[in-house]
Amino acid sequence: MSKKKLADIEKDFAQWYQDVVYEAELVDQTPIRGCFVLRPYATEIWENIKGVLNKRIKETGHKNAIFPLFIPKSFIEKEAEHVEGFAPELAIVTHAGGKELDEALVVRPTSETMIHFMFAKWIKSWRDLPLKINHWANVVRWEMRPRAFIRTTEFFWQEGHTAHQTIEEAEQEVLTMLQEYVNLAQDYLAIPVISGLKSESEKFPGAQKTYTFEAFMPDGKAVQMGTSHLLSQNFAKSFDMAYQNKEGKMEFPHLTSWGATTRLIGAMVMMHGDQKGLVLPPKVAPIQVVIIPILKKNTDNSLVLEVAQLLKEKLDNFARVKIDDDETKSPGAKFYKWELKGVPVRIEIGPRDVENKVGIVADRLGETKESISLSNIEYYVKELLESVQDKMFERAKKKLESMWHKEKKLTEFGPVLKEKGGIYQTGWCQDPECEQELKKYQAFTRCLLEEKTCAKCFHCDKDSISDVVVAKSY
Amino acid sequence: MSKKKLADIEKDFAQWYQDVVYEAELVDQTPIRGCFVLRPYATEIWENIKGVLNKRIKETGHKNAIFPLFIPKSFIEKEAEHVEGFAPELAIVTHAGGKELDEALVVRPTSETMIHFMFAKWIKSWRDLPLKINHWANVVRWEMRPRAFIRTTEFFWQEGHTAHQTIEEAEQEVLTMLQEYVNLAQDYLAIPVISGLKSESEKFPGAQKTYTFEAFMPDGKAVQMGTSHLLSQNFAKSFDMAYQNKEGKMEFPHLTSWGATTRLIGAMVMMHGDQKGLVLPPKVAPIQVVIIPILKKNTDNSLVLEVAQLLKEKLDNFARVKIDDDETKSPGAKFYKWELKGVPVRIEIGPRDVENKVGIVADRLGETKESISLSNIEYYVKELLESVQDKMFERAKKKLESMWHKEKKLTEFGPVLKEKGGIYQTGWCQDPECEQELKKYQAFTRCLLEEKTCAKCFHCDKDSISDVVVAKSY
Repeated sequence: MSKKKLADIEKDFAQWYQDVVYEAELVDQTPIRGCFVLRPYATEIWENIKGVLNKRIKETGHKNAIFPLFIPKSFIEKEAEHVEGFAPELAIVTHAGGKELDEALVVRPTSETMIHFMFAKWIKSWRDLPLKINHWANVVRWEMRPRAFIRTTEFFWQEGHTAHQTIEEAEQEVLTMLQEYVNLAQDYLAIPVISGLKSESEKFPGAQKTYTFEAFMPDGKAVQMGTSHLLSQNFAKSFDMAYQNKEGKMEFPHLTSWGATTRLIGAMVMMHGDQKGLVLPPKVAPIQVVIIPILKKNTDNSLVLEVAQLLKEKLDNFARVKIDDDETKSPGAKFYKWELKGVPVRIEIGPRDVENKVGIVADRLGETKESISLSNIEYYVKELLESVQDKMFERAKKKLESMWHKEKKLTEFGPVLKEKGGIYQTGWCQDPECEQELKKYQAFTRCLLEEKTCAKCFHCDKDSISDVVVAKSY
Repeated sequence: MSKKKLADIEKDFAQWYQDVVYEAELVDQTPIRGCFVLRPYATEIWENIKGVLNKRIKETGHKNAIFPLFIPKSFIEKEAEHVEGFAPELAIVTHAGGKELDEALVVRPTSETMIHFMFAKWIKSWRDLPLKINHWANVVRWEMRPRAFIRTTEFFWQEGHTAHQTIEEAEQEVLTMLQEYVNLAQDYLAIPVISGLKSESEKFPGAQKTYTFEAFMPDGKAVQMGTSHLLSQNFAKSFDMAYQNKEGKMEFPHLTSWGATTRLIGAMVMMHGDQKGLVLPPKVAPIQVVIIPILKKNTDNSLVLEVAQLLKEKLDNFARVKIDDDETKSPGAKFYKWELKGVPVRIEIGPRDVENKVGIVADRLGETKESISLSNIEYYVKELLESVQDKMFERAKKKLESMWHKEKKLTEFGPVLKEKGGIYQTGWCQDPECEQELKKYQAFTRCLLEEKTCAKCFHCDKDSISDVVVAKSY
């Protein structure tokens, strides 16, 4: 690992992010613009996130399936809004097997069309409903301004796709999965989020409603963490997905889709990181505890190493633990490395600690550093991991609250928003023309809120329909 | 589920296979030639296989990483033999983001070139070695004669890639992973395999040595289950992968790669299936035990359902269990369905069984059907699952042995091989010209054996170097 200093997180957040994702060995660049290698450390974080989400997806009654990478170009063109939304981002296979193809293939940017084609084969009767499928996959959307995890040409996600007899059941599904995402973000990634409906102009191409959950980074910009869509029946009609209902009549099912991506990792990095590097929430950290035996040169270190090993075995029962016993590196270099990599808890054990039967336990937040008796250190570490997880969420929540403003008129808050970012809760008449005004300040509507605290629209004189969150975004 | 009768497994094995993979809802066809949907049941089998293999890959010191889907066309062309081997099978992206690309991109047929490009960035010193990476991915090789699982345009696999200081260490790695594959096939998929070196003409494009593990299907044809390669140093040289060795000199590392694919599922289906459908080895079966409560119409079935539920809870401790309590289907239809799906153990419970406090336990092999006291049924079921797993391997081994022949001259065994398939162990001088002769009988060398039981080559008068296995293949 090189020892490049990270850019100042306060002065140049964007550069700090760029530095930390490379220095902590999360990603590396490839010769393909916008495509990154997810190195082992990032891959393990993703596996942990997948593990949590996959379990909940199965527990809520969905089954995983695997659909093809390629989609016939004509499929994408079947749903008019869908093609308009995705056409500029498509990667297209024109040749294969040594020949030009009769019909070009699109590398999937999302799989609605292919999955709906299959649904139409599988759904013949109301008995086949609900059909609840999930797909873990790589997708490709050509990206002009790539940024690791946040905007990448190829990215990794799950896309859920379901079909239901009634719109009420479909809408319940959309909300259930939105709640699962919110729980994932808050309870595992320690990221507080705001969730709600997207505006007409911001929703998924072809959807009737798009729910989003949004996080707000320390630089005052929003990250859309994932979305849950109630699709219009147009998708079902485009693929002739008619089925026989209980009364024997032909009907179209109500469809949903919902997805969350490797972008979650980027949001986690930005949300929690500090000048020393990553700070990973214990629940998804690849290494939760690093044990650093303090090794002396030209000395027999076997006792220290043995105590460290015994400690690891104790902690292995409930945590992911690593001993860094590299003899070529100084303790200082190791502290630096594991802080950079955001390991939540560090335990040092030197010869004197062995004599005193203690370990020095420090957390990555810099809040505690205690000498703890080895006889009951496991209870202390277990509690510390839980408390680090909780504190990270509380810290993030405070950051969110500190940048949250309630304002009435765009002309007043717009200039500050443009300069400093931040979250602005305001009123909106839901007219797209007013929404367009936000662009002057590089801002967008992020989601509609259920409450209504402003009587009037942020731009015009019409009444507000409900509050809306306005912010800059990644 | 439709009730199409499966083709006669004895008379038309190929059609039986085609029928069973669709009828048991493992796959479905898509509009893209050679690309199949893996339906939930096949996806779950694959997840189980992945789980076993992924654990062993990690336990043998490898880390997972994720590499891009696309590879610059020029990369594939860097290793001369490599490009010659893969060129006819490539799918090529020429347009993306609304423009023609300056350099076309290949959808990865395998990731050696991209991973080696990254290795060259990561390996600077002997301290960076060994580097042991694994990648779970989808890959694409344009397929002219697709067959579900066995030959598909897109398929799913893991590809391991490692770099070592010495060729001895690299060769040890190749053999270690080969042994892991053999264990997976035999201990989990219940498929006996033969492993050994591929001939020069059959090895991986650009490899120095390719080890294979091969299974032999009931129709007498071989399936290459996976391979483990010692790559030539040419790969390292093509990507300038020089590093500083302990003595401070620049050197090239020795590389390996090894992969196993969703093809394993196809082999498992063929190896164990029967006229009633799939027969799945308990260790990877998505459902290991199906409980069928015998429900009567116009009766209160609650007691039977309650006993079935209690039984499920007992078995859930060690097995994957499903209750089929669908009231719209007859017990006969359920037996048919779960036999077709290859569930290893079935338990029926009717009102009289509840009175007698027993369940009727049958295995999918058709060997046992017993009335077992509910008080200790879990021990019986646990043992039965183990014995079914063992018996399946023993049965498969007998099939293998029954089709294994030792013969001396191709002109004698060739015509029978061509007509009936089978495994022929014979001598070979290792001259590719003799190997060419096999094609007259639609046969190929499958792998070299370490033993030498034949003095002469199967074709010419030269001495045999070692025995070779000759067979037709999928």
